[in-house]
Amino acid sequence: MALFSWEKIIDPPQTGRTEKPRLTGLTMVIDKGLPIGQTRDWLALTASYVDLVKLTFGTSALYPKPVLAAKIQLLREQGIGVFPGGTLLEAAVLQGKAIPFLDHGRELGFDFLEVSDGSIAMSPAVRRGLIQEAKKRGFRVLTEVGKKKPGTGLSPREMRAQLALDLEEGADFVIIEGRESGKGAGIYDESGEIDPDGLENLLASAPWDRIIWEAPLKKQQLLFIKRFGPNVNLGNIPPGEVLALEALRLGLRGDTLLPE
Amino acid sequence: MALFSWEKIIDPPQTGRTEKPRLTGLTMVIDKGLPIGQTRDWLALTASYVDLVKLTFGTSALYPKPVLAAKIQLLREQGIGVFPGGTLLEAAVLQGKAIPFLDHGRELGFDFLEVSDGSIAMSPAVRRGLIQEAKKRGFRVLTEVGKKKPGTGLSPREMRAQLALDLEEGADFVIIEGRESGKGAGIYDESGEIDPDGLENLLASAPWDRIIWEAPLKKQQLLFIKRFGPNVNLGNIPPGEVLALEALRLGLRGDTLLPE
Amino acid sequence: MALFSWEKIIDPPQTGRTEKPRLTGLTMVIDKGLPIGQTRDWLALTASYVDLVKLTFGTSALYPKPVLAAKIQLLREQGIGVFPGGTLLEAAVLQGKAIPFLDHGRELGFDFLEVSDGSIAMSPAVRRGLIQEAKKRGFRVLTEVGKKKPGTGLSPREMRAQLALDLEEGADFVIIEGRESGKGAGIYDESGEIDPDGLENLLASAPWDRIIWEAPLKKQQLLFIKRFGPNVNLGNIPPGEVLALEALRLGLRGDTLLPE
Repeated sequence: MALFSWEKIIDPPQTGRTEKPRLTGLTMVIDKGLPIGQTRDWLALTASYVDLVKLTFGTSALYPKPVLAAKIQLLREQGIGVFPGGTLLEAAVLQGKAIPFLDHGRELGFDFLEVSDGSIAMSPAVRRGLIQEAKKRGFRVLTEVGKKKPGTGLSPREMRAQLALDLEEGADFVIIEGRESGKGAGIYDESGEIDPDGLENLLASAPWDRIIWEAPLKKQQLLFIKRFGPNVNLGNIPPGEVLALEALRLGLRGDTLLPE
Repeated sequence: MALFSWEKIIDPPQTGRTEKPRLTGLTMVIDKGLPIGQTRDWLALTASYVDLVKLTFGTSALYPKPVLAAKIQLLREQGIGVFPGGTLLEAAVLQGKAIPFLDHGRELGFDFLEVSDGSIAMSPAVRRGLIQEAKKRGFRVLTEVGKKKPGTGLSPREMRAQLALDLEEGADFVIIEGRESGKGAGIYDESGEIDPDGLENLLASAPWDRIIWEAPLKKQQLLFIKRFGPNVNLGNIPPGEVLALEALRLGLRGDTLLPE
Repeated sequence: MALFSWEKIIDPPQTGRTEKPRLTGLTMVIDKGLPIGQTRDWLALTASYVDLVKLTFGTSALYPKPVLAAKIQLLREQGIGVFPGGTLLEAAVLQGKAIPFLDHGRELGFDFLEVSDGSIAMSPAVRRGLIQEAKKRGFRVLTEVGKKKPGTGLSPREMRAQLALDLEEGADFVIIEGRESGKGAGIYDESGEIDPDGLENLLASAPWDRIIWEAPLKKQQLLFIKRFGPNVNLGNIPPGEVLALEALRLGLRGDTLLPE
């Protein structure tokens, strides 16, 4: 990858970074309501570094319809996948509206779908059914593993089993829960630290290139980049942090300039 | 309230949310200097969910005049009340310029006014006078209760007395101080936690629908929504958090999807 | 300095604030990737209060070339100096490309340059050479003192010696390292606190008006304003905090409204 504005002068200190359309090294952005003009403006600067955008929580339901349509179109024109937060599908499941939700989601222009059970209980049969119905409608599917509430987490072994099952049933990627804050959820403790033993346990024989780590905090991004290299898949990146993350991947930030 | 982009598919898990123009369930945004184009863009997405905007601290004094005029007009066209931070009126009081301040504020287009004593001492007579002079000039009045410096706080009983007095003297709403950070001020300790006994004491016979709680942190918003329901009045919400808060009110976020 | 929108009504509670072009009282903004339209919009509100913009880390290398050119031009038209983060020059030094970097940086339109050794080791001769080569090419030079990694810091005495040497060798200003976070780097501990004895030691006979303090956190800005007055040079200010900082300098925020 050449450095646009300094090409032929310097090279990225970390080599081998993938380019769009990426199979690994995905950056998934968490979007809590970036307005339409700012989205357009932001893409002119960052589009090469963004692979997926999540309209997080149920925020997509709060957009005036024309604004949502315009936003989805803008993102997809840049080769960026876009999906509503998993909580919205969980709400639809609770209301017995999962199938209409999938149909309507497709009509709205979403091309990815997240299947999660972060806040509700969901049987394996329902989870499998959602993955399959979504695939049938042309969605690429992200499942999420992990609970939002502290103390309700799965063990690394249970997470690994769920992860393997989801991939077998057709999920394209599996997201590891980290919430927007990166604290007190999924694999993170209340200060956003991760238990290294738990991590290694989770990883035993897991296909790391099919995992997207929710890692909103720099220290988390750094940990995964050091463990897996510049092409680890990272999620819940705030829009304003996309260039900072890309600099971290490429060794253009103090923390990764030099080899360890 | 219908969910714009998913209407007829799913309903808000939490029902009874008010719509604009709202008498309760107000969202008051803290604005530290959102530029004019971004304000316009942001309103196209969020106007239904914003009731009040505070140009916080003395920032309104730093705007080039045409930018300030355009911004106030934009907000008011969307049915949003707008006011300068209470500190600016406190500065005017210190300089013996309270009356010219009120007159000029009205000329600038502000339709709300905040009367506070967060940083200065103010006699009950001056406070009453400011409320009355502001009302005379057509302002709707917000008073604020609580001190900005830790350790100078009022007891819940004193806050309750001040609150009752302000309403009696004509205030439309009373703001409970939380600062921009939500930490170490008013009713919050250094980590942004609130003392539940202190809160219940403050609330004894207080009209909760006339209180606006400054609650910049999600855990604070969640606490008040759980205590009072989706239509509690919340303030000091950062502009980028408006959809996230609305999702929280409506049960479209993990924390409020299910009943407790 | 008159308060644009309230002039003739109230005066800034803190007097003597400098105006552009400033020799002291500089505000240096840290820019992690503000898009071009938002930059233009932001400048219409804040240009009077911004003196320097750092395109931090190696982010400038990630801009599409026309976007970078447009951004640099926009900033310089407003009398704002602009420079790439020091880490990018450190990468060039590692690759033996320092001189082409300086030449290309000038062609891109940068008018300031930061010479740092936050992440690499650099001999005094190389540091001096970089300052001199940059000056020859018409750059104004900022050097940075301090290490990015905790526990690798210089003593106040060593910092003071480096600072004096840099100024003697032609640096226009010396930046004291604080990182983007303001925590666990340079003069700050893990909670962003500063050791007052260390600070006073560092300051002994140092020319405070040639120092730019990286102070991203409000408590840090407040400490320096109280120690040096409204015209202290402060850096690593997020774009959205520029008006809040200016309010703090002028006494238009609770913390500085009254004298101590």
